[in-house]
Amino acid sequence: MTITQRLWMYRRQPLAEVGGEHYELIAQPLDTRLGDNEVLIEARYFSVDPYMRIGQSGKPTYDAEPHPLNTVQQSGVVSQVIASKAAGFAEGDWVYSYSGWQSHARVHASALTRLDPEQAPVTTALGVLGMPGRTAWFGLTESGKPHAGEVVVVSGAAGAVGSLVLQFAKRHGARVLGIAGGPAKCAWLRTDLGADWAIDYKAHGNADSLSAAIKEVTGGVDVYFDNVGGMVTDAVIPLINRRARIVICGQISQYNGGLDTPELGPRLLHHMLYQRATIQGMLARDYVHRMDEMKRIVAPWVKAGDIVFEETIIDGFEQLPSALNSLFTGEHRGKLLVKA
Amino acid sequence: MTITQRLWMYRRQPLAEVGGEHYELIAQPLDTRLGDNEVLIEARYFSVDPYMRIGQSGKPTYDAEPHPLNTVQQSGVVSQVIASKAAGFAEGDWVYSYSGWQSHARVHASALTRLDPEQAPVTTALGVLGMPGRTAWFGLTESGKPHAGEVVVVSGAAGAVGSLVLQFAKRHGARVLGIAGGPAKCAWLRTDLGADWAIDYKAHGNADSLSAAIKEVTGGVDVYFDNVGGMVTDAVIPLINRRARIVICGQISQYNGGLDTPELGPRLLHHMLYQRATIQGMLARDYVHRMDEMKRIVAPWVKAGDIVFEETIIDGFEQLPSALNSLFTGEHRGKLLVKA
Repeated sequence: MTITQRLWMYRRQPLAEVGGEHYELIAQPLDTRLGDNEVLIEARYFSVDPYMRIGQSGKPTYDAEPHPLNTVQQSGVVSQVIASKAAGFAEGDWVYSYSGWQSHARVHASALTRLDPEQAPVTTALGVLGMPGRTAWFGLTESGKPHAGEVVVVSGAAGAVGSLVLQFAKRHGARVLGIAGGPAKCAWLRTDLGADWAIDYKAHGNADSLSAAIKEVTGGVDVYFDNVGGMVTDAVIPLINRRARIVICGQISQYNGGLDTPELGPRLLHHMLYQRATIQGMLARDYVHRMDEMKRIVAPWVKAGDIVFEETIIDGFEQLPSALNSLFTGEHRGKLLVKA
Repeated sequence: MTITQRLWMYRRQPLAEVGGEHYELIAQPLDTRLGDNEVLIEARYFSVDPYMRIGQSGKPTYDAEPHPLNTVQQSGVVSQVIASKAAGFAEGDWVYSYSGWQSHARVHASALTRLDPEQAPVTTALGVLGMPGRTAWFGLTESGKPHAGEVVVVSGAAGAVGSLVLQFAKRHGARVLGIAGGPAKCAWLRTDLGADWAIDYKAHGNADSLSAAIKEVTGGVDVYFDNVGGMVTDAVIPLINRRARIVICGQISQYNGGLDTPELGPRLLHHMLYQRATIQGMLARDYVHRMDEMKRIVAPWVKAGDIVFEETIIDGFEQLPSALNSLFTGEHRGKLLVKA
């Protein structure tokens, strides 16, 4: 028996904004006969994440080679089992896989993680209890190392990772400034996420003005968790305190072209010297083997409703490429998902 | 009784190159009567170091306030004792003090460190067994953490700190590339200091060309000990290997104005993310209390003649301001000193 599988084939490398023109939407028959230990899954929720655009850079990034052309766009997916020849997986079960932008897939059971909808909404496997949560938790605790009373500044604070970093930092007893775009996001950071302060970077025309605003509220910065780069980072670095820790988790302002042809910005490394500060780059993949540590602490908070994990869900498989681009231009809050 | 004391008073803040016009040479009587525990010293060798120019920046640097105007220029000095009312110090003794650019000084014994000319040349107290040696040793071992077989790249490799870092890195079993200005310095790095490779950055018109040359010989960089910043750093950062350690010890290319009004350069922090690399700023002052650890290891190497610690000695107290500026434009090798 066959079913119709739809998938987004990655065809052309974007040089600036990414969109549908870099993909081809394909519908093709999928042979559903399963081998031993194989499972047929149907995707329900797709993750769209900034790292996907990094991998489309023509230069070496986190992998030596860019995302290969003429393959399905990689991504995390939450699916339901349609059929199974693997012990432990039954029709209707919810699973996580890294099977990419395709509506259905035949996958080996070893590539699936079972999800328990009783414990947390299944979409959290793509957010607070998945890659973004892991990034936020280990980036903050292993590289940021915040102490009670310190000032933690989070850029991209309304995003999937930033909104969690902000809340995790508060739980460490830090005083937290969230930086985001627009007054509505900033109000949300203060009222819903518990930020001590929030600053709308779009209200500032240059780094000096933004820097003055950050200095006015914080006095100085002990931990800077950077998801954004560019002007926001230019504004924060001159304000670092002695022994500050800067975590480079993302540089989203640079992804639509700046990785291939770097934008120019002020040289700021001399501040590292004065303050004996550290910049540490991190990737979610380094902590895959430590998910249990993170979940042991964060999952109970999620279950108790103590963590805000906002989701913005875009409806429709055909929206995937434009949803990816909206990460860089859009107005979403929290984790961006596409519902199949 | 009085003697004539000469001193360089720091009068005006330089905005670009520093020189005699920012100082006033003063000759004045010095009362030589000593109180209890006081010592009268006569300077023999003055240190000129890049950090002095940093402290003249109008913005906060390693201290919150710039070097105060209308005070004697601070610096390390090697002197001889002229008269003493302190136990343990006798006429003719060699001492180190941080008494600045003045020919004579009355100082409390607690501000003096005795030097033993039998153990090492007294000028080494301003070089390999002093602040530059400490900077090189702890910057490399505590922040760079080189392993045998790794690639260590040193910028400013012919300078006081860089020439020691290069040799210390070789002793750790690393493969070492020294970057310096001009073919003569590069030949010296290879033949006298034992560099595996040396590259003349002045032979390259831009960072891409320099980067290609660095990549060709090293293949990639595990530790980058940066004394220079600017174009050289732009060339190295895209070549870092996984978990690379970048030590920001100096940014000498930026000191003549770039600290007040930062130069523009390409944004490169995204590489930190890909390689999960670290940038660590360090200052010599953080390791003052650990001089004994460094000397325990390095002093025997010095005594045995196993370390090259070249000195460039400029003759004449009146040369001090121009000697300071020559750090940024000059052709000296190793440690730059002025002889009184």
